[in-house]
Amino acid sequence: MPATELTENTEKTDSRPRLLMGPGPSNVHPSVLKAMAQPLLGHLDPEFLHLLDGVQHSLRQLFSTQNRFTLPLSATGSAGMEACFVNLLEPGDRVVIGVNGVFGGRMADVAQRAGAKVTRVEAHWGLPLDEEAMVAAIRSTQPKVVAFVHAETSTGVYQNPETIARAARDQGALVVLDCVTSLAGIPVDLDGWGIDAAYSGTQKCLSCAPGLSPVSFSERAIQAVSARTHPVQSWFLDVGLLDGYYGGDRVYHHTAPISAIFGLAQGLARVEEEGMEKRTLRHKEAAAHLLESLAPLGFSPLVAAECRLPMLTTLNLPGSVTNQGEANVRRSLLQNHGIEVGAGLGALAGKVWRVGLMGENAQTKSVDTLRSALEAELSPGA
Amino acid sequence: MPATELTENTEKTDSRPRLLMGPGPSNVHPSVLKAMAQPLLGHLDPEFLHLLDGVQHSLRQLFSTQNRFTLPLSATGSAGMEACFVNLLEPGDRVVIGVNGVFGGRMADVAQRAGAKVTRVEAHWGLPLDEEAMVAAIRSTQPKVVAFVHAETSTGVYQNPETIARAARDQGALVVLDCVTSLAGIPVDLDGWGIDAAYSGTQKCLSCAPGLSPVSFSERAIQAVSARTHPVQSWFLDVGLLDGYYGGDRVYHHTAPISAIFGLAQGLARVEEEGMEKRTLRHKEAAAHLLESLAPLGFSPLVAAECRLPMLTTLNLPGSVTNQGEANVRRSLLQNHGIEVGAGLGALAGKVWRVGLMGENAQTKSVDTLRSALEAELSPGA
Repeated sequence: MPATELTENTEKTDSRPRLLMGPGPSNVHPSVLKAMAQPLLGHLDPEFLHLLDGVQHSLRQLFSTQNRFTLPLSATGSAGMEACFVNLLEPGDRVVIGVNGVFGGRMADVAQRAGAKVTRVEAHWGLPLDEEAMVAAIRSTQPKVVAFVHAETSTGVYQNPETIARAARDQGALVVLDCVTSLAGIPVDLDGWGIDAAYSGTQKCLSCAPGLSPVSFSERAIQAVSARTHPVQSWFLDVGLLDGYYGGDRVYHHTAPISAIFGLAQGLARVEEEGMEKRTLRHKEAAAHLLESLAPLGFSPLVAAECRLPMLTTLNLPGSVTNQGEANVRRSLLQNHGIEVGAGLGALAGKVWRVGLMGENAQTKSVDTLRSALEAELSPGA
Repeated sequence: MPATELTENTEKTDSRPRLLMGPGPSNVHPSVLKAMAQPLLGHLDPEFLHLLDGVQHSLRQLFSTQNRFTLPLSATGSAGMEACFVNLLEPGDRVVIGVNGVFGGRMADVAQRAGAKVTRVEAHWGLPLDEEAMVAAIRSTQPKVVAFVHAETSTGVYQNPETIARAARDQGALVVLDCVTSLAGIPVDLDGWGIDAAYSGTQKCLSCAPGLSPVSFSERAIQAVSARTHPVQSWFLDVGLLDGYYGGDRVYHHTAPISAIFGLAQGLARVEEEGMEKRTLRHKEAAAHLLESLAPLGFSPLVAAECRLPMLTTLNLPGSVTNQGEANVRRSLLQNHGIEVGAGLGALAGKVWRVGLMGENAQTKSVDTLRSALEAELSPGA
């Protein structure tokens, strides 16, 4: 086997550091990287379990919930999504899903694979869900589960969860909320809003490495899982089995990703040190600075101010970008300036950029760096 | 929120370093820890994709396969197991599974949840599978899939895959092999043995952090997935969707766990530098030294020499251990000496220890450290 090839690859000596201003991952603070590089502990070591207790406690704070079942699932946010649906839905169950972007659509796909009867309530990409349409669908189909996205990463749209969640609970439905991009960037209040199951990711506003999905299930949700007549289709994501380890008995289920959890503990400590009030404000200020700074270059927001996310801004592209091919400009930003911005997804591919100002990167200086790079790339002589 | 609690936890200032001699995780080399602490790259960054190409190439070498579909799945080994079954099995499909320990039993559970008709061929824990019984079950049930464990982590038993795999393929069945504990400790030869789907974990003989599962599917297996009439029940583990990203088109599916893959790249480089021949010998020598060193203390191997694994030794416990309660002795080893050894699982709980000499820890000096600690804990005056 060629011994040198990978060694060289892992050195990455000729690369410049990246400013990650796409839809995630965001840049990880050096203290979080350092935490991940600590020597390993076993997944049943009392010292690791003590740290895990602290992580679960902090995640409850961040989700604003008393939910006992709150933990860092050992896979990315999409696995967290799947955990919610495969545990709460049995074949034939009805579910209403709001779809106004890629991740609502992914929810519908995942629910369908779990054998559920899915009612999709569609809205235009770039707009929030139509609350009246959601409420009407909930009332007419009487679903077991209602699901939607808090912060749609494909469009940059914020969804106020309150009205839809209330209507769902009034009809006895369980409410699932995608908090992948919202958690640690804007307030999340699971208990206040009456959310029964939520999931997030570590690589967005938490500014940790990708690979974990914080999830939380209410007691109502746990009871619904207990009352199932079919076994959960996924062994790996079975809430009952996960609860054996994360619930306090610490019975072996799978080997927890120790290093990633070390990093998450440090990432959560940074969030707690700053406090969500300051952190929310920081995200808002950075987003406002982005729009102001790029307006003179011809970029305009896709999403109206009242439902625009601060941590992920979807920008309509000026002719100076589209004339060169937007992918070429993104490539130049990466190659010449070390800046990553995100492409449009799905219906918005080729039409917009998605600029993330998440966690550690929610800084006006990140915006200034991007503006300078764009000025250089888009100037007539470039 | 209490800002100090987690910060204190992540410091771990008062703990001694651990010698991880359980069934995994094993100790991670400092260069792998350092690789994980590199600043992040995006999951679509050409530089990351180049590194990922190298990782996939190295995994093919290590699995001894030409399989194009070979990749580090973004979750632990149990998710790799689930990926094999949920892709290859449809509801009503027949599968024959060899069960002589926890992980064969887990396979049967996972296959059942996928709706398959499972024929379990049981063998005594501590013995290999009865090849004749497996072949008879394959011939009589004509299954779509035959699955068994190469290195059973719960018992320390080695299974020669050749006869069973040949019988399965002679009947047109697909063969699934659990290589969680074998990969990078003893030779794995997927193509030579005719294996169609295999999975492993990074935290055993690869000596990387837990959280990834190297998997490989043959072209026959990929064709079987393509020919399905039902969608794969898991979106996260759907081979067709995974292939969109890992197959070369690099279409976004989920955000790859960048930092863990940085670590894996370095871990694979270390394996390549040593070479599998030397590495296999090192595991064997360490295991032989373990048995010689602990025999005077009254420990004896559960498993007969001809099917005993080198990287995971299951030891019957002497009275000097059971008289104190085996869990108490394990706790003393951890607290007083920083050494972790594994408890017995399932039918062997309380009766044996599982001592891992995996990857970086497959060293005679690890054994000597354990022996000294045991001598101190088990001496009459202790």
